[in-house]
Amino acid sequence: SCPATNPSMLNVHLVPHTHDDVGWLKTVDQYYYGDRNNIQHAGVQYILDSVIDQLQKDPARRFIYVETAFFYRWWRQQSQSTQRIVAQLVNEGRLEFINGGWCMSDEATTHYSAVIDQMTLGLRFLNDTFGECGRPRVAWHIDPFGHAREHASIFAQMGYDGFFFGRLDYQDKARRMKTKEMEMLWRASESLTPPLADLFTGVLPNGYNPPEGFCWDQSCDDAPIRDDPDLEDYNVDEIVQKFLNAAFYKTNHIIMTMGSDFQYENANLWYKNMDKLIKYVNALQAKGSKVNVLYSTPSCYLQELNLANLTWPLKTDDFFPYADDAHDFWTGYFTSRPALKLYERLSNSRLQTCNQLEVLGGPKSKSGPFGEGDSDTMKRAMGVAQHHDAVSGTEKQHVAYDYARRLATGWAHCEVQKHKLHHSNTLATLGSEAPRVFCENLNISVCPLTESSHKFSMNVYNPLGRTVSWPVRLPVNGSVYSVTDANGRAVDSQVGNVFISLKCTCYIYDMKSSCLLPLLSVSMYQKSESFQKNEVMCVFVLFGNYRYNASAGNNKESRQTSGAYIFRPNSSDPFVINKTAETQIVTVSSTVQEVTQRFSPWVSQVVRLYEGHRELELEWTVGPVPVADGLGKEVITRLDTDIKSSDYFYTDSNGREVLERRKDYRPTWELKQTEPVAGNYYPINSRAYIKDDKHQLTVVTDRSQGASSLYNGSLEIMLHRRLLYDDFRGVGEPLSEPGEFSDGLVARGRLLLTLSPPDTAADVHRPLAQGMVLQPLLSFQDGTPSANTKLEFSGLQTSLPPAVHLLTLSQWDKDTALIRLEHQYQAKESKTHSQPVTVNLQKLFSTLEVLGASEMSLGANQWKEDMNRLQWNTEKTSKPLPLSAKDPSPWEVTLNPMEIRTLLLRVRQL
Amino acid sequence: SCPATNPSMLNVHLVPHTHDDVGWLKTVDQYYYGDRNNIQHAGVQYILDSVIDQLQKDPARRFIYVETAFFYRWWRQQSQSTQRIVAQLVNEGRLEFINGGWCMSDEATTHYSAVIDQMTLGLRFLNDTFGECGRPRVAWHIDPFGHAREHASIFAQMGYDGFFFGRLDYQDKARRMKTKEMEMLWRASESLTPPLADLFTGVLPNGYNPPEGFCWDQSCDDAPIRDDPDLEDYNVDEIVQKFLNAAFYKTNHIIMTMGSDFQYENANLWYKNMDKLIKYVNALQAKGSKVNVLYSTPSCYLQELNLANLTWPLKTDDFFPYADDAHDFWTGYFTSRPALKLYERLSNSRLQTCNQLEVLGGPKSKSGPFGEGDSDTMKRAMGVAQHHDAVSGTEKQHVAYDYARRLATGWAHCEVQKHKLHHSNTLATLGSEAPRVFCENLNISVCPLTESSHKFSMNVYNPLGRTVSWPVRLPVNGSVYSVTDANGRAVDSQVGNVFISLKCTCYIYDMKSSCLLPLLSVSMYQKSESFQKNEVMCVFVLFGNYRYNASAGNNKESRQTSGAYIFRPNSSDPFVINKTAETQIVTVSSTVQEVTQRFSPWVSQVVRLYEGHRELELEWTVGPVPVADGLGKEVITRLDTDIKSSDYFYTDSNGREVLERRKDYRPTWELKQTEPVAGNYYPINSRAYIKDDKHQLTVVTDRSQGASSLYNGSLEIMLHRRLLYDDFRGVGEPLSEPGEFSDGLVARGRLLLTLSPPDTAADVHRPLAQGMVLQPLLSFQDGTPSANTKLEFSGLQTSLPPAVHLLTLSQWDKDTALIRLEHQYQAKESKTHSQPVTVNLQKLFSTLEVLGASEMSLGANQWKEDMNRLQWNTEKTSKPLPLSAKDPSPWEVTLNPMEIRTLLLRVRQL
Repeated sequence: SCPATNPSMLNVHLVPHTHDDVGWLKTVDQYYYGDRNNIQHAGVQYILDSVIDQLQKDPARRFIYVETAFFYRWWRQQSQSTQRIVAQLVNEGRLEFINGGWCMSDEATTHYSAVIDQMTLGLRFLNDTFGECGRPRVAWHIDPFGHAREHASIFAQMGYDGFFFGRLDYQDKARRMKTKEMEMLWRASESLTPPLADLFTGVLPNGYNPPEGFCWDQSCDDAPIRDDPDLEDYNVDEIVQKFLNAAFYKTNHIIMTMGSDFQYENANLWYKNMDKLIKYVNALQAKGSKVNVLYSTPSCYLQELNLANLTWPLKTDDFFPYADDAHDFWTGYFTSRPALKLYERLSNSRLQTCNQLEVLGGPKSKSGPFGEGDSDTMKRAMGVAQHHDAVSGTEKQHVAYDYARRLATGWAHCEVQKHKLHHSNTLATLGSEAPRVFCENLNISVCPLTESSHKFSMNVYNPLGRTVSWPVRLPVNGSVYSVTDANGRAVDSQVGNVFISLKCTCYIYDMKSSCLLPLLSVSMYQKSESFQKNEVMCVFVLFGNYRYNASAGNNKESRQTSGAYIFRPNSSDPFVINKTAETQIVTVSSTVQEVTQRFSPWVSQVVRLYEGHRELELEWTVGPVPVADGLGKEVITRLDTDIKSSDYFYTDSNGREVLERRKDYRPTWELKQTEPVAGNYYPINSRAYIKDDKHQLTVVTDRSQGASSLYNGSLEIMLHRRLLYDDFRGVGEPLSEPGEFSDGLVARGRLLLTLSPPDTAADVHRPLAQGMVLQPLLSFQDGTPSANTKLEFSGLQTSLPPAVHLLTLSQWDKDTALIRLEHQYQAKESKTHSQPVTVNLQKLFSTLEVLGASEMSLGANQWKEDMNRLQWNTEKTSKPLPLSAKDPSPWEVTLNPMEIRTLLLRVRQL
Repeated sequence: SCPATNPSMLNVHLVPHTHDDVGWLKTVDQYYYGDRNNIQHAGVQYILDSVIDQLQKDPARRFIYVETAFFYRWWRQQSQSTQRIVAQLVNEGRLEFINGGWCMSDEATTHYSAVIDQMTLGLRFLNDTFGECGRPRVAWHIDPFGHAREHASIFAQMGYDGFFFGRLDYQDKARRMKTKEMEMLWRASESLTPPLADLFTGVLPNGYNPPEGFCWDQSCDDAPIRDDPDLEDYNVDEIVQKFLNAAFYKTNHIIMTMGSDFQYENANLWYKNMDKLIKYVNALQAKGSKVNVLYSTPSCYLQELNLANLTWPLKTDDFFPYADDAHDFWTGYFTSRPALKLYERLSNSRLQTCNQLEVLGGPKSKSGPFGEGDSDTMKRAMGVAQHHDAVSGTEKQHVAYDYARRLATGWAHCEVQKHKLHHSNTLATLGSEAPRVFCENLNISVCPLTESSHKFSMNVYNPLGRTVSWPVRLPVNGSVYSVTDANGRAVDSQVGNVFISLKCTCYIYDMKSSCLLPLLSVSMYQKSESFQKNEVMCVFVLFGNYRYNASAGNNKESRQTSGAYIFRPNSSDPFVINKTAETQIVTVSSTVQEVTQRFSPWVSQVVRLYEGHRELELEWTVGPVPVADGLGKEVITRLDTDIKSSDYFYTDSNGREVLERRKDYRPTWELKQTEPVAGNYYPINSRAYIKDDKHQLTVVTDRSQGASSLYNGSLEIMLHRRLLYDDFRGVGEPLSEPGEFSDGLVARGRLLLTLSPPDTAADVHRPLAQGMVLQPLLSFQDGTPSANTKLEFSGLQTSLPPAVHLLTLSQWDKDTALIRLEHQYQAKESKTHSQPVTVNLQKLFSTLEVLGASEMSLGANQWKEDMNRLQWNTEKTSKPLPLSAKDPSPWEVTLNPMEIRTLLLRVRQL
């Protein structure tokens, strides 16, 4: 359904589009309705109303829509006749969905699990509503501030034919413009066999804006085309000439994004003027002009590029960090709003648990005495939280609150869900109607039930596909507890003090009280490998806390400040917060060693070593960051070791494959480094490491953060930021999160440090990171279980193989469930695990019979067998390409390193 | 076609409307196209596009449109199918034209002649395009800054059923709200027999804006109605409750203006939310609510008021001056931009001449060797110049230039017209092809032809319906000229110096050179009454020039400044510019006495007495007004006499009927005077006077100005203003007009002063003022006429009777001409002339045969016999009502005092 082009002319593809942030300066609902227009004029309901009206006026007109979170809201409010009209426009290619996820996700601060979920949510709505014609062919990340390789890999696996974005480093862009490398093939995985993760990628010429002078939205002030010669200021000739002067690309096609943020609320302005532009420019063809302007879409443009059959340059690294000028590195948002970043990550864990329980509970789980709880609310809340002004931390404060509130509502709906499951006959655990309590404030040692009850039971749901050991700390009032597990065996526990709350805490290891541990999935607390304290300690020379003072923009090189987006310290050397910490050994027991270090009233950390765990836990607490001295501050923890890492360090991409980084260096162009600190920061989502021949120090994080290695053997991670100035990228507020009592926000988090030989490091950090992402769910009931209660349950027949991660288990339709099985190791990173591994689908579940399995694209909006992506020629590469192993049988799914298999299972409850 | 109302409920009439200034911050074409949106977001083309789209979506929706200047532009660009849709909407009453003039004219600074013309232009377009359904029933002056009684009279005579406006004095409004007198009957003439000039008049409750919180335009930030309970911030209940709390009027109907300046560019926002408002408010009726909301129009609302059959209060004065707060009197604009005000007035004169020539020239006048000249361009230019931010002087500087440029283009088109006429066989005057020159710069003594030629002829066209005497001054280089008239008789002339240009000027009275005077209409230079210098001189005690210093807003009572709209002197006493003038007697001859007075480098005046004229001419020159002292200045001329005028003075209304004014007093409420100067200023358009039993001093002006009488025997007129601050009413510029060489603008003008016994004063000032309004057109040709040339021509068979003014003579269709005959005297003001007078239409023209005559409404959009206005009950009045005389025969038209008869004549060229 693409428009005709003219092969002998330069074809200018006008792509009418709107960029609708799923929250930023306003909340997603404020944007939808057009509320709070005093903050920003934007009302998505009107955009869709208006565009649909205008598309009907001329079959040549086209429009693309991107954010399904908005489209879904709008669609539900339309009459049947409007819905029919829209479906017709979609079928005719006049309205085309592009990208199609619930939001346009951030690429620096998101975890691949949540990204795949949000894409799936949006694509499913489109698929259910419009079928094949609603399937987006092109990924479209025009606004995110840097681009992750894992995102490209995900898009490729979802079946997208190409990818367009708007922002890349200004030096990189200048070079690409010069060498005509604005369009390329991105090989987005070192593990997956090409072209599995190959994605055609184009950089848009004007970001995502129209060429200068051609913005005809109500929000713009550019001159309209005035074509009535009887009126003043007839300007057709001038406008046409200006248009013809634009610069061009490699093929005889060029794409022009005609739109921008929340544009097309009054689409008539745009279309009326573009109609005229097309009319008057093409009219010149009769006088010999070789320019042909047409309404088009990214997929129609892409199709023309594909037909050109050229050889495209190859890209194998990523597009981080993003700088739009010499002192303007967008590396602050890697850490901005650390508490929101953690809450989003924990919410993902809850959502996966909620999804799994829904599948295990079957149809019963959707109705019951506790109300309409389900996972949908959390899915949508997580969907918007992935937005590039959500988890990124670059939204206004009231919007950040709104994201958190949405997630909290999602948690509440999931709790209803879990209540029901516990009460269903199949999964009843206590056989009593005693209220089940989810203590969501355990992080601040608050749980009224455990604090007041003399006898209570605890239920632990482990959403991982394998057994893990997990330390539990509960606030209690007694000093002696007896703790037993589901089999009546005593569990080690210990009562001690926690500095933050000064309340008693019982460690699960040697509690003396009644405390039951029925496990819904697989059992916990089995001791794993030996206690390797000594190995860790021999390498660490220092872990210290530092701060950068933020630039206030009064610097002679540039007026750029540090802000929600931008990181710009006012000096390259951080200030140590306190050279000597006030140190206290809190507990030394057989199960845990704990040392508390207080560096200042607002920076402290607890260092823990657990028995049976090889990682060192650093629990940091930062805040309220003082700013009375007029200086914004960006607090880092820096690990200085004797590892000979030179300039190299390693960071993950969206929590999955790891990329090599090198100080003051970019793989694809000769970097002129202008910000020695900020210009070397990269996003980490789950881990970072430095290594030499003997040792690899890996830090696993509980949320997305910014990290760098600025010295040989050193790794630094930014923990918290509090700033006094806006950074001129639109948010219009300094990033200074309020805490309790109008003071700054206190953030707390955990870093898990492991030290291993490089060739076995992945064997440790891969499961450690997945355990950090999917955390057990604790719930409590007063009293003791009745005699006939089933105290232990596992949804899986057996633990999954070590290389396999259960990425998704989610109810799809009444009789189907979506499962994603993932090989969690990269090619070559583990001698043991970087091998193909096979899972038998029929032997997976303990309470579900799998009647059939059909493989789908990663986005679950297409059968795998129907996937038929465009093919692209690229430069030859000398690197050996990974090969894939095949499935031994229809029921047996083989996973190659880093592969994700998406399957729709027909299931029946046993 | 009005919507149903509910008699047992309070009916809230929502009136969706847009207020589209025909120029203000942007030019009329910039507003039309939506250009220069950085100044103000406004694009009328899109408003009409959008409203027409939205009206089609629901037959209940309604819209009114007001400014035909814009609608006309838009209509011409529409496809036939859109035109059909629009016609259908008009026929069904869903789109209703209100007011319908070319613009919404200013009421303080316009002349009735131009107002009637601009209304006629707009109404005719509507009538030609839509027929009866396009005829506006309601006049709608929601924005003008005060309201003139003559405007109301004009609207009544045009057949309007009612009139709504938004702005009146804040004290007056408060009182009317309290006493429920917001709606009234306005008896707008003391001369015309009621109900001829009676007009039902309503003050709108919210100016012309929506109630607070209910502005759903793209330009507003009010909360939209959020009615999806699944989304955040559901606010239906709150919005409905807020709406029900609004205050109400006298009947069980209330009008709510839902719109404002340039709103509805994206009409969907408005209608979508109003649909919801109506739905949810009316849904409460099922629960006992007595409020009924409906889409409506002013005429539908008016119809309901009429059906209520109440007795309404009577209003007989006007609504000047307008103040919106204690120190905020909108009396500055009476004088703002004096040069533009003069140019507009002179343009009216040219347009009338152009119209007359078009009729006299017949079909030939529309084609010919000189191009497509005609009167239409000038008609449209004058149409927009009447706008309440045009001749009012309250537009931005670049917009003022645009109005002037439009008028200049109009002049040029009319010159082409006049060229042709002179070349047509009928009216050939010279029989040569020598180029005819119109010296438009005679005001600065520039006319290349007369300055270089040794022999030239001058043609004078007099557009008045009677003989006048007119002094002509031409720049010449010789020192001796012989001047003869059309009959070869010598004409008195004199060569002298003019101070402004230092060029020689030949007075027509005793020129010695060849100078022909063929008159196209009626002859000139017949000497009239005796030279009455002595009478004038015995009363004048002083005419001096003063200035007020403008408030800079740093005053403790109020921050209000003097600006384009507001007059606020910083002290009540003006400063005399110079107590002693440098005086020079330039010429004393038999025809003219001239005294030049130079008060300062920037204020001077020439005082002249012409032989045969009883008026004293004051030619004032003011500027560049110096502002280097940091003070804006407002220059007045003050005439201090020994007339015992007490607190009374008299000002005309739009150049027609005169109203009595009294210092610190308003006829309809007890005034609390807060600005002793600005609060006593009134607009004058043609004259002002003071009087006692014996003497009346009348000042006839050449343009609209502000005037007052602040002392017994004193009359002051504001001449020029130059200010340093904006006055916060939107224009955003200080009124400081640039002149040549980046200095302030120099303004020059004339005041004609006459002194008469009060009972004969009108006999002098009425014809004097008409002569000032319709000035002769001079044109020049080099050489002498050939022998067979007809040197004199009169379009009329004979002079009209002294009481009758030829207001309009304009080609209508191919065989028809529109004529307006006017009785130019008020009832009782002249013993001689305030009587009915009869004109025989068949004996009117010398070159046209009148085949038929049909009387029309004043706006010429309805046959007089079809006029059927709504009738209203009002309070009884003790004043005797004037009676009308009838026509003696179908061909004989009788005019009663102040009456205007509008006739469509079927004519044939003889």
